Amino acid sequence: MIIVMADNATEQEVEGVIKKIEAEGFKAHLSRGVEKTIIGIIGDERRLREAALEVLPGVEQVIPILHPYKAASRSFRAERTIVRVGDGVEIGGARVHVMAGPCAVESREQLLTAAEQVSAAGATILRGGAFKPRTSPYSFQGLGEEGLKILAEARERFGLKIVTEVMDIRTLPIVAEYADIVQLGTRNMQNFDLLKELGRINKPVLLKRGLSATIEEWLMAAEYILSGGNFDVILCERGIRSFETYTRNTLDLSAVPIVKHLSHLPVVVDPSHGIGRWKFVAPMCRAAIAAGADGLLVEVHPNPAEALCDGAQSLTPENFAAMMEDLRRIAAVLGRQL
Amino acid sequence: MIIVMADNATEQEVEGVIKKIEAEGFKAHLSRGVEKTIIGIIGDERRLREAALEVLPGVEQVIPILHPYKAASRSFRAERTIVRVGDGVEIGGARVHVMAGPCAVESREQLLTAAEQVSAAGATILRGGAFKPRTSPYSFQGLGEEGLKILAEARERFGLKIVTEVMDIRTLPIVAEYADIVQLGTRNMQNFDLLKELGRINKPVLLKRGLSATIEEWLMAAEYILSGGNFDVILCERGIRSFETYTRNTLDLSAVPIVKHLSHLPVVVDPSHGIGRWKFVAPMCRAAIAAGADGLLVEVHPNPAEALCDGAQSLTPENFAAMMEDLRRIAAVLGRQL
Amino acid sequence: MIIVMADNATEQEVEGVIKKIEAEGFKAHLSRGVEKTIIGIIGDERRLREAALEVLPGVEQVIPILHPYKAASRSFRAERTIVRVGDGVEIGGARVHVMAGPCAVESREQLLTAAEQVSAAGATILRGGAFKPRTSPYSFQGLGEEGLKILAEARERFGLKIVTEVMDIRTLPIVAEYADIVQLGTRNMQNFDLLKELGRINKPVLLKRGLSATIEEWLMAAEYILSGGNFDVILCERGIRSFETYTRNTLDLSAVPIVKHLSHLPVVVDPSHGIGRWKFVAPMCRAAIAAGADGLLVEVHPNPAEALCDGAQSLTPENFAAMMEDLRRIAAVLGRQL
Amino acid sequence: MIIVMADNATEQEVEGVIKKIEAEGFKAHLSRGVEKTIIGIIGDERRLREAALEVLPGVEQVIPILHPYKAASRSFRAERTIVRVGDGVEIGGARVHVMAGPCAVESREQLLTAAEQVSAAGATILRGGAFKPRTSPYSFQGLGEEGLKILAEARERFGLKIVTEVMDIRTLPIVAEYADIVQLGTRNMQNFDLLKELGRINKPVLLKRGLSATIEEWLMAAEYILSGGNFDVILCERGIRSFETYTRNTLDLSAVPIVKHLSHLPVVVDPSHGIGRWKFVAPMCRAAIAAGADGLLVEVHPNPAEALCDGAQSLTPENFAAMMEDLRRIAAVLGRQL
Repeated sequence: MIIVMADNATEQEVEGVIKKIEAEGFKAHLSRGVEKTIIGIIGDERRLREAALEVLPGVEQVIPILHPYKAASRSFRAERTIVRVGDGVEIGGARVHVMAGPCAVESREQLLTAAEQVSAAGATILRGGAFKPRTSPYSFQGLGEEGLKILAEARERFGLKIVTEVMDIRTLPIVAEYADIVQLGTRNMQNFDLLKELGRINKPVLLKRGLSATIEEWLMAAEYILSGGNFDVILCERGIRSFETYTRNTLDLSAVPIVKHLSHLPVVVDPSHGIGRWKFVAPMCRAAIAAGADGLLVEVHPNPAEALCDGAQSLTPENFAAMMEDLRRIAAVLGRQL
Repeated sequence: MIIVMADNATEQEVEGVIKKIEAEGFKAHLSRGVEKTIIGIIGDERRLREAALEVLPGVEQVIPILHPYKAASRSFRAERTIVRVGDGVEIGGARVHVMAGPCAVESREQLLTAAEQVSAAGATILRGGAFKPRTSPYSFQGLGEEGLKILAEARERFGLKIVTEVMDIRTLPIVAEYADIVQLGTRNMQNFDLLKELGRINKPVLLKRGLSATIEEWLMAAEYILSGGNFDVILCERGIRSFETYTRNTLDLSAVPIVKHLSHLPVVVDPSHGIGRWKFVAPMCRAAIAAGADGLLVEVHPNPAEALCDGAQSLTPENFAAMMEDLRRIAAVLGRQL
Repeated sequence: MIIVMADNATEQEVEGVIKKIEAEGFKAHLSRGVEKTIIGIIGDERRLREAALEVLPGVEQVIPILHPYKAASRSFRAERTIVRVGDGVEIGGARVHVMAGPCAVESREQLLTAAEQVSAAGATILRGGAFKPRTSPYSFQGLGEEGLKILAEARERFGLKIVTEVMDIRTLPIVAEYADIVQLGTRNMQNFDLLKELGRINKPVLLKRGLSATIEEWLMAAEYILSGGNFDVILCERGIRSFETYTRNTLDLSAVPIVKHLSHLPVVVDPSHGIGRWKFVAPMCRAAIAAGADGLLVEVHPNPAEALCDGAQSLTPENFAAMMEDLRRIAAVLGRQL
Repeated sequence: MIIVMADNATEQEVEGVIKKIEAEGFKAHLSRGVEKTIIGIIGDERRLREAALEVLPGVEQVIPILHPYKAASRSFRAERTIVRVGDGVEIGGARVHVMAGPCAVESREQLLTAAEQVSAAGATILRGGAFKPRTSPYSFQGLGEEGLKILAEARERFGLKIVTEVMDIRTLPIVAEYADIVQLGTRNMQNFDLLKELGRINKPVLLKRGLSATIEEWLMAAEYILSGGNFDVILCERGIRSFETYTRNTLDLSAVPIVKHLSHLPVVVDPSHGIGRWKFVAPMCRAAIAAGADGLLVEVHPNPAEALCDGAQSLTPENFAAMMEDLRRIAAVLGRQL
């Protein structure tokens, strides 16, 4: 951590800051430049964030040097984390996995049809919401446990793994029981109590990036889960909020190589939410693979026009299958299979 | 709701859309312009949002006309809502209320000192967190129930009302027992299960705007609480995320008159989080009152440099008291007391 | 255009709006819904934007239906525009073109070295700034006309085309004389007088997206050039401003398929500025091609650590050459050459 | 400037960075922490920005310490700048000045009427565009020099000062001849050649903040003018782009106290563009004064519904006059006149 003193800071103020730093158990390192006096702090600054150094007299600015996350960083773990979902499905390895299915489980028939279709096209993991976070209290809120049972049936019949969202800490036990991967949605990325509980389960967690989360905040959310003991975390980029109104969100594909540079965790991309219009989902899936994503999360619905949610961004099974062909060939360019 | 057809839409496609609208129980209203064919939908479009009209062949764009919220809107309730906190403390009336205190309850001594100081300066409501949402799992997480008890003691001794945050649905009963106003934090603005539970308690709720929530989303979060039966909702603007790096957030004071135009609910402002640096809190408090805010939420700490959280944005009791004088005079210009 | 009337609008107010619409020479189309009265306007609404319908009594909202651009839209020109730069270099056709070179022309030696290197690796167009827009008045501002002459020499020697930026309307004639493609920078995207002049030259224009321009505003900037008679416009996505601080900008690759859906103009991508750190440039170049970009603009410097500008985002010639291999194979997946 | 070395940086890499720093004529200051090695640079880092230190082997991050602006900073000039417009009109002193008038000069009659009305209500400066930056090439582009003449006539008749925008470097001489204050619009904030020319005129400049400019970039734009020798710069906050769609922009009133903290230049606020809807202009004007603004720029039109531009955000003369009363009383609370 670096303390930049104000131009008119007095000697006494400089000494005051040094005393405060030492009182907190750190070493201070004074450096007088031509225009600025700066004070470096030696020690693990993460312990020091609480101390409000900025309000000390004469302080102009406090600049952190360390990333605030530890367990999520590549200095903590040099090799890449591979999340083993079971039966050979591994996220973060040479194989790129596609998680596909409808936004919500609407009925047994709808889900089994979707499962069969995405499986035939090469998806290995089935997505589908049983508990749905909806902007409006008047919208369809999901089938609940009944939806989880239908997902489990689809898993049996088509040999797919299941990813589904947990919204409420009270239903986490039941979601974790049915799901192969427990998804934490974008609006809950900083639901800290739920993050702590996810650190205690022994199921992989798919952690969606918050609507306007910085990469650092996203990794700090992962840190909550990792620091609880669960290292099976898959990060999921799903679009950030911008001023653009033509799309639902702005998919930030630069997050893929950056997260892989800063962290050992695997990262997948959800272009369906990222762009919000089905017409543009296929090019963004291709781009995500080309950027190095370890997997995709794609909304596919047997009949998008009848979908109870997110129909506008859902692919038809035919479009999905056609897209998968291109994805395989792009993955191959990067030396990966799909 | 308005459906805009693509330039090259066929007659058959136009008819397909009309049939779909009628099948959902609505009336369609066709209008052929010089360049565009548009189809209006007559009926309560809120019921129709699910139907993915955008994916129907020939559709270019779907434009909603109604606000998605009902109970939160001024058409639902023409007169302004006044939230009665008890003992004559009313948010949304002629009197502007200032809620002040430290970010977190750190100790009995710290809180009682703060309570005495803010009360002496004219605050009527004491703020202080017992359960703290922290970006880092390694930061101070609050005193929990012990903190609530200290708040209750301060209420007794200084005749203040208490506002404190609920983070976890499991601790809502205990928070609601101690608090006069239950605060829902910015990161939980779309924690829908918690919103539903807040609709069932009989305590006022202070609903902070999400980090990057639009005004419409914020009002939809309020709608969750109102539609559950709890109409005592106070909206709180606390800064939105922007590209500016000098401040923690960008305080959106335009939200004050806009929310009062769109909704009957009272709105207060939290400049401490909105700007994140104590030096700029006083001018933004003045501006908030001038913009028409019904109250303020201000961080005040007996000794900001020793604060366990948010010291950098906390006022000293002296600065707070000095500021209150100006606020009273600005409130008077608008015909209000403080 | 759709006028939504306020809930409490009177009959008289509705009639007032209709009269105003008719007085402007349009037809009004009244539609009374269950909750809202709306008035459609039939005619070319682009002529009507000036009339401040929003301030008429009883009006709640005015919603435009038509895109404000005409010549830039696909309804104006159904086939894709191919910009012919000369000697068979065509932007927007089956071949993907890579424009590469240093941020600025620094010296004859530096530029000729760079030109040789990027040409050898397969670039067909050389980039390099002679007039440099710099955030600071104290930074290197470019070599001016001397830089243009060096670029011309490189063109001769290596058979490359030249793209270089115009900043000032007074130097446009000389830039247009030397350049094969005249670049308009992000900060000048809405320099309307310069746009008008670019509509009068007979050289292709590379139009960078503004720092925080919506896609619609970007296409409106193109409209200025097209409406002046110059249809050789290449759009260039170069990152938008977001709240993320780790990268210089947030590259918006979704703009590629969207622009191609809305407009007939070709679109290229500049990942160097889009992400601002050379380590992440190659994955974003791959992703841009996979998303369907018609070309790339990439900063390559013989010795990035000595660059007078943008060294941090410049590739070495070796990294550039290695990347080109992957790009060729990804282009092939989409049926294109590079 | 602080160089943070990567965790795995070798001794040789650390030495390489030090050598590079010394080769550029600076002193390096090495500091080894528990986790990080950092290297401080002593000397005027502004000269060093060009050197791409980030690409040196072993470097993780480069953190600037100094603000990049000099002449605009308070360390350069301790007392506040007062811009003298003539005849006792001073921006930045105890008196708050209101600049009011229509978006564009549309006709002699319209402007003279507006001038009379705003003058009667207490405005001291008349605004009105003769050259208009318009998003669409098909919109009204202003009356040009004819508009300037009408403004000059209004000045004579009503004793007002004149502020009007320059768009094109070629018309700067004529605009500067007529105007008392030359306005640089938001889209031209980084039109560097125009900024340089504004540094050479001897008229005050009103510098609008760019649509998505950070405060630092805004001050750097001012630096271009100041470093050219013209110190009469008035900064104007006019709303920044955010994700909110209900308003045209998001007025950033926190910029007022921040700019006054960082710079000696006066700052005024334009709520008309900042919020884009006349209904909310008055509360935001009040808030701007309460936040400490040195003046306001307000759109007032004799008949907003007939305005050729920006009618939706223009006040009627009656609303303007009523608002001025409140503003006077709020200014008085801050010890200022209006």
